[in-house]
Formats: sequence, C-alpha cells, structure tokens
Amino acid sequence: MPKAVVLLSGGLDSSTCLAMARQQRYTSYALSFNYGQRHARELESARKVANALQVKEHLIIDINLRSIGGSALTADISVPKARPAVQIGAGIPVTYVPARNTIFLSLALAWAEVLETGHIFIGVNALDYSGYPDCRPEYIRAFEQMANLATKAAAEGKCRYRIHTPLINMSKAQIIREGCKLGLDYGLTYSCYDPLEGNHPCGQCDSCLLRLKGFKEAGLTDPLVSVKT
Amino acid sequence: MPKAVVLLSGGLDSSTCLAMARQQRYTSYALSFNYGQRHARELESARKVANALQVKEHLIIDINLRSIGGSALTADISVPKARPAVQIGAGIPVTYVPARNTIFLSLALAWAEVLETGHIFIGVNALDYSGYPDCRPEYIRAFEQMANLATKAAAEGKCRYRIHTPLINMSKAQIIREGCKLGLDYGLTYSCYDPLEGNHPCGQCDSCLLRLKGFKEAGLTDPLVSVKT
Repeated sequence: MPKAVVLLSGGLDSSTCLAMARQQRYTSYALSFNYGQRHARELESARKVANALQVKEHLIIDINLRSIGGSALTADISVPKARPAVQIGAGIPVTYVPARNTIFLSLALAWAEVLETGHIFIGVNALDYSGYPDCRPEYIRAFEQMANLATKAAAEGKCRYRIHTPLINMSKAQIIREGCKLGLDYGLTYSCYDPLEGNHPCGQCDSCLLRLKGFKEAGLTDPLVSVKT
Repeated sequence: MPKAVVLLSGGLDSSTCLAMARQQRYTSYALSFNYGQRHARELESARKVANALQVKEHLIIDINLRSIGGSALTADISVPKARPAVQIGAGIPVTYVPARNTIFLSLALAWAEVLETGHIFIGVNALDYSGYPDCRPEYIRAFEQMANLATKAAAEGKCRYRIHTPLINMSKAQIIREGCKLGLDYGLTYSCYDPLEGNHPCGQCDSCLLRLKGFKEAGLTDPLVSVKT
C-alpha cells in the first residue's frame, strides 16, 4: 500500500478526504497544524478522526501564524456572522489566512519527501467554499509544478509529487454523503471558526453555515450539532 | 520606499542579499527561522546583521523541522567534511533540508501579503553552492507563478509577487566583494553547518569550504575566521 501525507484540520472536508484516501488504500500519515487559529478546538477533532481512521502516524506541527496575522482566524479581526448564502464564496472574506495552504502544503511536501512518497492529499473544495484563492484547481496545479522542481527526490528522478484533491468538484452535500458511506462519524469533526463558550459551534460563521447547508441538502442530521445542543 | 521581505539566515549570502535590498532602497523586513537547525548559532548573526543594516522589523519564527527530519542539519546524520571542491555542487548532499526554501518562501509570502508588498528577497546562488534544487532559477520562477495564484492580494489584482534573487548568478568571490563594497561586516555573519565547541566554525563542512574559497578568490581575509582563531 503506497503512503500518503493527508492534511487534516479536523473539519468536515479534510476528515472526509482522509476517509477517501483510506478507501483508496493509501497508508495515511495525517498532518495538522497548531498555528494560533482562533478555533484550536479543531485539533481535538483532528486527533479523534486520525485515531478513528487508523492513520499510521499523526504529526501536529506548531507554527505561530499570529506573529504574521492578517486574518480573522489569526488576529483581532471579527469573524463575519450570518452572511446570506449568495455572499459566501462571492468574494474572499477576512477569514482568509495569508498563504495558509501554501505553508501547509510545503510542510506536507517536506514530510512526503522524508517518507519517500509522492502522494499528498488536501481536502480543498471549489464549489461550496469560502472563496479562498488557494483552494482553486489552478493553484493546486501550480503548487504541484513547483514541488517537482523544489525537491531532491524529484531532481534525482526518484519521485513525482502529486497533490490529490478528491473533493475539489463536490458539493458539500456530496462530500457528506460520501463520508457517511465510508462510515465517517461527523460527530468527531469540528468546523466552526469562532467557537462559543464551551467550544459550541457558533452556527453563524461561513463555515457553520456551509456545514448546515450541506447536511440539509444531503437530508441528514449533523451529529455534532445534535450532540452539542 | 517600497517594502520588501528579506529571508535572512545570518549567513554570508543572505546577509549580502539584505545589504543589496537596502542599496536598492527597499525598506527591509527581515525574516529568520529557528527550525531546529544544528547551527542555530546563525540566528545570533541574523540578529546582529538585521540590526547593523537597520531593518524595519526582524521576525524570527519557530518551526520545528526536526519533527520531519531527513537532513544532516535537522536529524542525527553526520555533516560531510573536507569534501574535494569538485564534489561540492556536483550532487545533492545530505545537508539538503526537505522543502526548506519552499517552507521559508511560503512564510515570507504570507508576511509580504500582510505588509501589502509583492517584493521578497532570497539569497539563493546557483554557482558556488551546495547543489540544492531549491536554489535553481527554474524553481524560483515556479514558486513565483504559484504565489501569484495562492494569495488574496494577487487574486484581487492588488499585488504581483516577485522573488528577487540578486545573487543567483554571482560567484562567492563576487558576492563577498559586493558585500564589502556595501560596507557589510562579514565578521557579523556565520556560515558553518556543524559548529565546534564554543561555536567556532568547523572549517571543513561544504559551507565553510565555499566561504573559504570565496574569500581566497576575492583576495580578502574572512574577519569571522581571523577573529575566532
């Protein structure tokens, strides 16, 4: 079974992505980041999901992106609430974290090189998403090209890097149905950007709203919300 | 004066690169990394150089690349010593750190976006160098293309990112002459990969040998070595 590095935030998308990598018979190495995010609660979910999906190893790297700031997730900027559905994905909101996927994929690339595999999975989605530029297919292809010039393994012809994005063209409802089919317990995952006291999801940030819309369209109940409320 | 993020290890090349950015009238924001490198002594030099060259801000980010390993600089692998000049740069040595420049440039990109500038300087050199793939011009161009798809500022047409590599085609002797012309005190810099006790440069790793060769060809004395011995 080939190895794969799988970026795992602990959210709905990345957890489904991990379940899909497993379904595709990769031996998964999950990679998470404690980056000073407002919703560090997601790391508890990342641990639970990594454990439930029996990854080979789960590495959590500390990197303080608060020292750079520039986002509602890493600085004192308010997270937008209760935005109409038509606004979500129409522009790039203040929850965008500068170069986040580039930083995360770079570290995934480093680990993949050490593990001697060319497979990296990331749960980006360009349909029911927040409009972040580093979730688009053209960005992913450009990262891939760069990765194949950046590394010793590629320069020596031992490895070609491929960024797998199994969710990229799926709707949130399709993602949820796929995860359920694979037996993923969404009660383990966590999506909220701006948790309330006791880490209850706020239910009003873009991430909560997209999750809510996804479960509704899939005709399913979110086990996380039904447990928490 | 436009702003620029300048990657600064504290070594000879990156310090010269910073001096050149200053000469080109950029307001410099120096970025260094405490990444678990064997030669963390270089950070002391980075601080001294940043101070001497009057950067606007010097940010040092902690990121433990030892958790990934895979290099003589970040794992228990011996640093090669006293290699013949013909071998240096002929292959990619074990001091290569997986995806290091990609990780560092990604964080520089994030900071540049927050600072609202498209200018990033890196002191890579593809002539008198260790043979690292992420020092080659084709890699730098690929990173630049990716950066211009990765970011909100680029997606919104507010900024184009450019990776400046003023040293890329210079010999080590040319770099040293340039730095001296700009008044850089190389006694502040530090290049050794594998410091001896008391942080004396070993004089035998590739980095020490390239530095030695550079000063010799420039017909100059290395103030660091003359002070230390």
